[in-house]
Amino acid sequence: MKAKVYVTLKAGVLDPQGKAIQHSVELLGYGGIADIRQGKYFEIALDDSIDQEHARAAAERMAREVLANPIIEDYRVEVEA
Amino acid sequence: MKAKVYVTLKAGVLDPQGKAIQHSVELLGYGGIADIRQGKYFEIALDDSIDQEHARAAAERMAREVLANPIIEDYRVEVEA
Repeated sequence: MKAKVYVTLKAGVLDPQGKAIQHSVELLGYGGIADIRQGKYFEIALDDSIDQEHARAAAERMAREVLANPIIEDYRVEVEA
Repeated sequence: MKAKVYVTLKAGVLDPQGKAIQHSVELLGYGGIADIRQGKYFEIALDDSIDQEHARAAAERMAREVLANPIIEDYRVEVEA
């Protein structure tokens, strides 16, 4: 059972790392870029003894309590068998 | 037009950051975790004048040339209108 957690900055929170990447790729000649934002991505492999419902609950709890800072970040959880 | 780029370490490449997160969450009492790997996630907003085909091509090129290190990382690109 694998859970994927995507963590992104909330809209409106400044993302200097994304801005730096945007600036760099524009210097390299890429055009038409309105904005780049960087987030984090986690792949959590869970023991096969855990069913899908519990896997989702565990991943949601980890995302909320450890992986994301809910004051400035949003998170999204996907679970696949 | 928005492109999403997911960058992950190739299988077999050591991920000390993921291991540190796994160790931390286990200390916090989470059980049943076989493995955690951390990756990167980029949201690229492209000008609306760019059609889906060109958006995908630009995002693929950026992922290959700038956002990922193809020696140790894999990437996946998704484009949505």
